[in-house]
Amino acid sequence: MGGRWFLIDNSAVFNALGKILFLLAFTMLVPLLVAFYYREPLVPFIVSFFITLVSGLLLMRFKGREDWQQKEALAIVALSWLAAAIFGAIPFLFEGVSFIDAVFESMSGFTSTGSSILTNIESYSRGLLFWRSFTAWLGGMGIIVLFIAVLPKLGVAGRQLFRAEAPGPTEDKLKPRIRETARILWTLYILISALEVVALFLGGMSLYDALNHSFACMACGGFSTYNAGIEAFHSPIIEFILTFFMFIAGANFALYYRVIRVNKFALFRDEEFKAYSFFILGFTGLLTLVLFKDMGFSPFNSFRYAIFQITSVMTATGFASTDFNMWKDSAKILVLSVMFIGGCAGSTGGGMKVVRFLLMLKYARRELFKFVHPRLVRSIRLNNKAVPEDILQSILSFVVLYIGVFVVGTVLLTLLGVDMVSSVTASITTLGNIGPGFNIVGPMANFESIPLLGKIILISNMWVGRLEVYTVLVLFTREFWHS
Amino acid sequence: MGGRWFLIDNSAVFNALGKILFLLAFTMLVPLLVAFYYREPLVPFIVSFFITLVSGLLLMRFKGREDWQQKEALAIVALSWLAAAIFGAIPFLFEGVSFIDAVFESMSGFTSTGSSILTNIESYSRGLLFWRSFTAWLGGMGIIVLFIAVLPKLGVAGRQLFRAEAPGPTEDKLKPRIRETARILWTLYILISALEVVALFLGGMSLYDALNHSFACMACGGFSTYNAGIEAFHSPIIEFILTFFMFIAGANFALYYRVIRVNKFALFRDEEFKAYSFFILGFTGLLTLVLFKDMGFSPFNSFRYAIFQITSVMTATGFASTDFNMWKDSAKILVLSVMFIGGCAGSTGGGMKVVRFLLMLKYARRELFKFVHPRLVRSIRLNNKAVPEDILQSILSFVVLYIGVFVVGTVLLTLLGVDMVSSVTASITTLGNIGPGFNIVGPMANFESIPLLGKIILISNMWVGRLEVYTVLVLFTREFWHS
Repeated sequence: MGGRWFLIDNSAVFNALGKILFLLAFTMLVPLLVAFYYREPLVPFIVSFFITLVSGLLLMRFKGREDWQQKEALAIVALSWLAAAIFGAIPFLFEGVSFIDAVFESMSGFTSTGSSILTNIESYSRGLLFWRSFTAWLGGMGIIVLFIAVLPKLGVAGRQLFRAEAPGPTEDKLKPRIRETARILWTLYILISALEVVALFLGGMSLYDALNHSFACMACGGFSTYNAGIEAFHSPIIEFILTFFMFIAGANFALYYRVIRVNKFALFRDEEFKAYSFFILGFTGLLTLVLFKDMGFSPFNSFRYAIFQITSVMTATGFASTDFNMWKDSAKILVLSVMFIGGCAGSTGGGMKVVRFLLMLKYARRELFKFVHPRLVRSIRLNNKAVPEDILQSILSFVVLYIGVFVVGTVLLTLLGVDMVSSVTASITTLGNIGPGFNIVGPMANFESIPLLGKIILISNMWVGRLEVYTVLVLFTREFWHS
Repeated sequence: MGGRWFLIDNSAVFNALGKILFLLAFTMLVPLLVAFYYREPLVPFIVSFFITLVSGLLLMRFKGREDWQQKEALAIVALSWLAAAIFGAIPFLFEGVSFIDAVFESMSGFTSTGSSILTNIESYSRGLLFWRSFTAWLGGMGIIVLFIAVLPKLGVAGRQLFRAEAPGPTEDKLKPRIRETARILWTLYILISALEVVALFLGGMSLYDALNHSFACMACGGFSTYNAGIEAFHSPIIEFILTFFMFIAGANFALYYRVIRVNKFALFRDEEFKAYSFFILGFTGLLTLVLFKDMGFSPFNSFRYAIFQITSVMTATGFASTDFNMWKDSAKILVLSVMFIGGCAGSTGGGMKVVRFLLMLKYARRELFKFVHPRLVRSIRLNNKAVPEDILQSILSFVVLYIGVFVVGTVLLTLLGVDMVSSVTASITTLGNIGPGFNIVGPMANFESIPLLGKIILISNMWVGRLEVYTVLVLFTREFWHS
């Protein structure tokens, strides 16, 4: 993984971007089929398809070196997510959404955030809403991973791309060849999604709703086809099915592969998975108590709302089965807290990731110990393996950068006139790719009322958050381009 | 500084605690004089004096080893601050303040926080208010530093105490002998305080007010003798004098010594001092703009309120020259932001300290660079010297622990029924030893309405914050007592 002291090769970056747009164009044929089925206008998707395809082909005319260095890999990944958001926005323009709003919605889709600027969701065409859910699903497992899985062999270069996009500090391969890993992940993803479609259909959803909500759920994306979100179904069964699949989607997909192929008990031996389950159950328990005590809900409803909302927010899905913005602060603070934790590494979930949280706690504990016994150095262990010190340090600085971006976003939004609670929650919900916040960006509200400049800040928050800060931020350092 | 693998020697800790209480008892004779001068009841201070003295003498009967290890030093420092808060609370009990409230006020004093639970300050005796300001002043430079300066030689042990109390990761000595350093610091502190008394007196304050406000100001303590705080004076001149001395108090006192003895330009060569000035001026500029634009203040008043509030909050003094709780969120967010920065290392100010903030920014920048060029290791420099890696790591984990304590405090307060904005600001304002927050703990409000358990949380926040997290938190680890 040699980051050599090279100037970046722009042509190589353009060429790769072209290939990704080429691939993206074909994904637009799926909503075209939906529009065809529901006899809606086909022009939006046909036009979007051609614009994206032609842009891709034009960019592919650039020829650069094929053995990308670290710099090219980073630029390709960061810019292809930006490009996907921009080209993915085109279909929205046909239904009267303004450009920045369309890019917001599309970025929210691909980064599987689930924040929306659409005020009356039910008024949009079925094809467009399907495209919206589908972008979340594509982005959930990663457009780069898809690219690696589908396109011809990339060799070492593929591994660099994979790393730059991978969620969380995870081992980068299941198999020696990165392409095999990418294929395994996508296969698992498709299979579990299909299972969810069946479950939701049996639970009472229409096939269209089941598809849309499975896409949003498996990607931890959080888009719904109803204004009232999941509350629209008034069905505890559907809520429990979604809770189950959100929980699945928020854990490490590589673990599932290990469960199938290597060891049935791999899940319960994994420290991150245990911590993830512990956090979800712990916060659910606390929230159930608070809802029962402070909000006067019945025990069943307290539990039902607690487990759904905690799982949804912690995995960064962002579905809401009730308007938790109306809850008392004692309940809301628990929802806000789990926003900072997030799902597992290697999941489709967002946030800072459980494993980082876990290692941070272990690190803090060790520092306390070192303060008393400076000469005794103990290594930090995860799953019975010592974690290298440089990984620990990069996690700590990740946390610092992550909080830095969160704070800067919050301050800028507030300076633009957004109230403080909305700013805080809008900033973390977009950075963590979660979806809803509180107040004017609450679960039953939307991001329409944020000022234009604020929307641009939130778009970049989603982008920065999905690529886990480093991959995007380095593009804005002088050294990246000039040395 | 050897932390050997020893069981802690409790007798040695008790003995040292006794000595500190012995010293503390005599400080109570100062408010006794004030009470005598104003013909107020003397009993409260006489009783407090004797209780503290006798407790000190009793504890001094324990005999332990004199060559304290790291563990004893940490326990002595942490526990003596707790003891000071508890014994310092006694005078408050005589004027009808409940026990927890009195400890809150006393801890707020010694840690020079300046948060208050007294609802009508002006109704209390002059002797008691003087004691309140005086505790802040004693705690500002450090009761342990005072102890080292005044009591007979401590040798190596003194250095360990000094370190455990010192604010910020600063070099631990001006002179080879730690006692000389302690004396220099206290002398400087007394001289600058005297200067401020004269300035405030000439600016129009009564001598009593000038003394009280100088104590609170030099300690970055923030107590006032008026319900309306600094607004009571309606005097821009007094505000500017206080701003100047808050700025002085928030910078490194060791630097002043260097300016006098070594190099006139030492201030302007110090990176932390430059960053400190830059932050204060930058945020003042921003806030001036926001107050002018969003709040419609005159240009002069915008600047006047901005520079006072920013300097007061960033240095963690916590004076208020206006009720900034009534400001719009765009102005409040700037006040909230500087709460997280704080004063310089080696100052009487609170917060995370500018140098930590500065090193954190440099660290984050280097990590971004390392992400592109993993093989190139650059050391981080401060004042043209490379900063050791272990210092950097302990700063990062300090930040993580600090934010952890802040978050836990916030969540617990909110669960107790305090609204979210009040909880967030109460938690950071006590942890950073600042003083006021927003909403129910705003600058013209007080901490009276916080539930009892919440007050205990905030008391421990002040304690943890003043001793910079580690010194207190280690006491709560199992390893500290059992191995």
